[in-house]
Amino acid sequence: MTSAFYFEEGIVENALSIKMRLKAIKYDAMSEFQRVQVIETYFGTTLVLDGKTQSTEFDEKIYHETLVHPAMLQCLNPQRVYIGGGGELATARECLRWPVQEVVMVDLDKDVVDVCRRLLPSWNDGATDDPRLKLVIGDARKYLVDEPGTFDLIVLDISDPIEAGPAVHLYTKEFYDIVKTKLNPGGVVVTQSGPAGVFNFKECFTAIHNTLKVSFDHVSAFSTSIPSFGSEWGFNLAFDGDLSPVDSWPASKIQIPFPLHHYDGGTHVRLFNLPKIIRDGLQDEHRVITEDNPVFMY
Amino acid sequence: MTSAFYFEEGIVENALSIKMRLKAIKYDAMSEFQRVQVIETYFGTTLVLDGKTQSTEFDEKIYHETLVHPAMLQCLNPQRVYIGGGGELATARECLRWPVQEVVMVDLDKDVVDVCRRLLPSWNDGATDDPRLKLVIGDARKYLVDEPGTFDLIVLDISDPIEAGPAVHLYTKEFYDIVKTKLNPGGVVVTQSGPAGVFNFKECFTAIHNTLKVSFDHVSAFSTSIPSFGSEWGFNLAFDGDLSPVDSWPASKIQIPFPLHHYDGGTHVRLFNLPKIIRDGLQDEHRVITEDNPVFMY
Amino acid sequence: MTSAFYFEEGIVENALSIKMRLKAIKYDAMSEFQRVQVIETYFGTTLVLDGKTQSTEFDEKIYHETLVHPAMLQCLNPQRVYIGGGGELATARECLRWPVQEVVMVDLDKDVVDVCRRLLPSWNDGATDDPRLKLVIGDARKYLVDEPGTFDLIVLDISDPIEAGPAVHLYTKEFYDIVKTKLNPGGVVVTQSGPAGVFNFKECFTAIHNTLKVSFDHVSAFSTSIPSFGSEWGFNLAFDGDLSPVDSWPASKIQIPFPLHHYDGGTHVRLFNLPKIIRDGLQDEHRVITEDNPVFMY
Amino acid sequence: MTSAFYFEEGIVENALSIKMRLKAIKYDAMSEFQRVQVIETYFGTTLVLDGKTQSTEFDEKIYHETLVHPAMLQCLNPQRVYIGGGGELATARECLRWPVQEVVMVDLDKDVVDVCRRLLPSWNDGATDDPRLKLVIGDARKYLVDEPGTFDLIVLDISDPIEAGPAVHLYTKEFYDIVKTKLNPGGVVVTQSGPAGVFNFKECFTAIHNTLKVSFDHVSAFSTSIPSFGSEWGFNLAFDGDLSPVDSWPASKIQIPFPLHHYDGGTHVRLFNLPKIIRDGLQDEHRVITEDNPVFMY
Repeated sequence: MTSAFYFEEGIVENALSIKMRLKAIKYDAMSEFQRVQVIETYFGTTLVLDGKTQSTEFDEKIYHETLVHPAMLQCLNPQRVYIGGGGELATARECLRWPVQEVVMVDLDKDVVDVCRRLLPSWNDGATDDPRLKLVIGDARKYLVDEPGTFDLIVLDISDPIEAGPAVHLYTKEFYDIVKTKLNPGGVVVTQSGPAGVFNFKECFTAIHNTLKVSFDHVSAFSTSIPSFGSEWGFNLAFDGDLSPVDSWPASKIQIPFPLHHYDGGTHVRLFNLPKIIRDGLQDEHRVITEDNPVFMY
Repeated sequence: MTSAFYFEEGIVENALSIKMRLKAIKYDAMSEFQRVQVIETYFGTTLVLDGKTQSTEFDEKIYHETLVHPAMLQCLNPQRVYIGGGGELATARECLRWPVQEVVMVDLDKDVVDVCRRLLPSWNDGATDDPRLKLVIGDARKYLVDEPGTFDLIVLDISDPIEAGPAVHLYTKEFYDIVKTKLNPGGVVVTQSGPAGVFNFKECFTAIHNTLKVSFDHVSAFSTSIPSFGSEWGFNLAFDGDLSPVDSWPASKIQIPFPLHHYDGGTHVRLFNLPKIIRDGLQDEHRVITEDNPVFMY
Repeated sequence: MTSAFYFEEGIVENALSIKMRLKAIKYDAMSEFQRVQVIETYFGTTLVLDGKTQSTEFDEKIYHETLVHPAMLQCLNPQRVYIGGGGELATARECLRWPVQEVVMVDLDKDVVDVCRRLLPSWNDGATDDPRLKLVIGDARKYLVDEPGTFDLIVLDISDPIEAGPAVHLYTKEFYDIVKTKLNPGGVVVTQSGPAGVFNFKECFTAIHNTLKVSFDHVSAFSTSIPSFGSEWGFNLAFDGDLSPVDSWPASKIQIPFPLHHYDGGTHVRLFNLPKIIRDGLQDEHRVITEDNPVFMY
Repeated sequence: MTSAFYFEEGIVENALSIKMRLKAIKYDAMSEFQRVQVIETYFGTTLVLDGKTQSTEFDEKIYHETLVHPAMLQCLNPQRVYIGGGGELATARECLRWPVQEVVMVDLDKDVVDVCRRLLPSWNDGATDDPRLKLVIGDARKYLVDEPGTFDLIVLDISDPIEAGPAVHLYTKEFYDIVKTKLNPGGVVVTQSGPAGVFNFKECFTAIHNTLKVSFDHVSAFSTSIPSFGSEWGFNLAFDGDLSPVDSWPASKIQIPFPLHHYDGGTHVRLFNLPKIIRDGLQDEHRVITEDNPVFMY
């Protein structure tokens, strides 16, 4: 019972939290949309939105590499990339490592983007200086609907679907149907999909997977442990047509032309071979998320 | 700040804890060797030794299946099995699913074994009624040294190497050299090996792996997420000779003649394909644990 | 961040808690009316109702002596005593130290009374064997209304007025008007009155005081520190007529014909000389608690 | 289990803590002597030294008025005042309300004084602009020994006697014998004396009282509740000669020629009438704190 500062973050309501020594509060303010905090813990500099860890210095590369690179490999010809959300700019950073023509990133919250640029510089690592990046503050769905043009890769790096949060509309069948119309042939969509531990995968991971399956020919679920999230974390990528799905590629086929921190052939095999309990859970899932039947997580 | 009972368990000293709602304390006493507690949390009935979660109703099968079955498959002809530790009797339960002749289990703490039999009956699931089980209360190392006879599989299901704990001597090169002499040709040893998350794998997981490599021709490291441990968890199996190592077996080759909760071909591939950060860590490890140079974890 | 069990009890909503090492849970069940728990902490055996500490082995005597003895001294001729609530039986114990004829105690929750008799025997200290005690399970207000007979002292030892709790009706002007009709000439009513620290006295302490003032000629507020409640704690006694109020009695006039743990002349002077901030608060208070305008605390 | 920041402060080792929502960390650095933190909690702006709350916006006036004004009233002719410690400058503020000639304040830690002037301006409330204040950074004992001149009032506003802390030497018989030689006839010394709740008064409160009694003709112990300290808090004032001790003054004799927040006649009577348990504890105390037999608190 040492006298000290702590950050307690709920993982399962009324049941389970992570408790971290809190070393510093570097930023703490309300934006137009949410509470934005930048703190220091064991996991280094950490972005917290509405009380939930978004990414940490220690393991943000695990999250962002897992989100971007398998989808990039799956993509037939990644030239134009769309990022919905992605305020930390690290998703943009990973996309820009590839020889793409343009990355359009649309995030709702200017304060988050500004704070991340200022206090989390290694997250974007110069991405904002890249002339191929088009950074837009606005609604990610509205932009897709309103603006002409299509993409080879659409990366959805948005907050979890919390009740009353704006992200809820970006996890629905209705939204995925819009996404579909904005993908070029051979195009791919990938979305972060919430917790995927054996104890919490049912919150939204399997429901997002099942919802994508209604709209797309092929959906691959994958997951990796992200310690600062207190759980394994889930992702889904989806596409139409007869591309060879990355989920069955052998390690040797995973060739990335630049060095990475986490992702390589061996990691790839781990990501896409889900534990039996999760695979069973994906098969048993029948929920389809719609505007009328949304799914909320804790 | 609801009024409630909690169990806080340290994961990283002065940095990180798991905090669980505590629903009940079913047992709490000092044995000759340690504090023994059986509690109820989100993860169900939980055995806690000296403040550390040993196994929980929710995910004990993940731990015990991972410990036993890959090693059993690796083994040339598993007839005689030795379990060092294993007080919950669930390791014995998993071993006895196979058509073995005898399982000798040697645990130090009679109180733990008794409490587990009484309060955690699903952990042993009748294993203690199996005439093939020989249950001995005593020192696992001393038994191996003193008793004649050799084994096809030696399973080390012992507490983590904590300073001043009795388990320290069961993670040393000296001990593995004893183990070697007690294995039949084609025999295998497998040991739980402590935390294997990207943030804590250096505590002992890689050191145990490297120490086994000094004594054995082949060592396979593997890991799985165990939520109630607050981390991915590591294991190592080792053997001499030219058996085909299970770490490279395809999913299709994993055939288990009875239904399991967690382990199957797909899970197997995940277990043995470690993330890049861990693989790099295994390669960079140079510590060899000896009686004179022990390794302690938090 | 030692691994351990804790009891966290909220003191100020979303702001302040007490955190105690939890040594044991001796009882934990739902009664018809509330959650009843008996635990062991630093303060010894502790009764907890709906998550709130009711009394502890360490300082229950401070609470019960303060509740009973000043009112007993104030009373002209204490022969018949009524206790509303008082499930721990310690209020009865203190009343029965005096040469009274009868103590009628009416508590709503049979489970609380039974659990206290069984697990907190020192709280009643044989009070239940005293033939002068008449113990009734029932509604304290209804009993007063329905049963004939009047009392010299009415002691209200009831839970705090929590929204939706049954105790709410026992802190209203309507109830005090009933109490008035049940007091003999020279009779006194005393009620526990919630937290009385400089940070939380406005929750209900001053409102109860002000409400009693509407019904009675004289009301005395007093308070004492009760460590296990995490705050100083308030009481009010009230009466009609021209008795000399105890609140101005000198220490020398406080003569108790049996030894006590906490209460004596010096303590009396401390109890009734409230800090300036509290006295100002009592004067500034204008709320009168009625059935239509109840006051709730955290 | 809301996600939030907390400050947990130990009150009783391994047994009891206060847990506060942490709203902001305004300052956090190591000085030459200690960790200095200024935070925001429920109690407002708070100075924390080495993990222990020193004073808070909410109740610092209770502490500082209690420390200064009774001693000032006890003093025959308060013209020259010495403050040992007092880094927040609030003790100086209270002393300077009186028509004294000079207040000499000697605090060890320049960083504390600077931080308090900058971040806790209401604590000093302009005291530092008063030409009667002589502010010295240095050792409070050495200054008394080395500098000529004597005082009418010596106020010891120093940290608790923690093992290895510098304050230990300012609670010993040897130090009080120095203090004695620096007091004018009719002079008074007052010292903060640590926790004085019924559960923790034995840590040092009664020992400081008993030690002063060895050196001085008269010692008065007094206490008040200070919520942010999680306990009632103790003080002792001492003097030689035949002054009428304030501890027995009636409320009506307490005349302060300026408005105060906490202290007045009624509060005075409460302060000096300790609860029976504490009075018994003072009588039972036989420890005399010396350099060779120091007393440490948690």
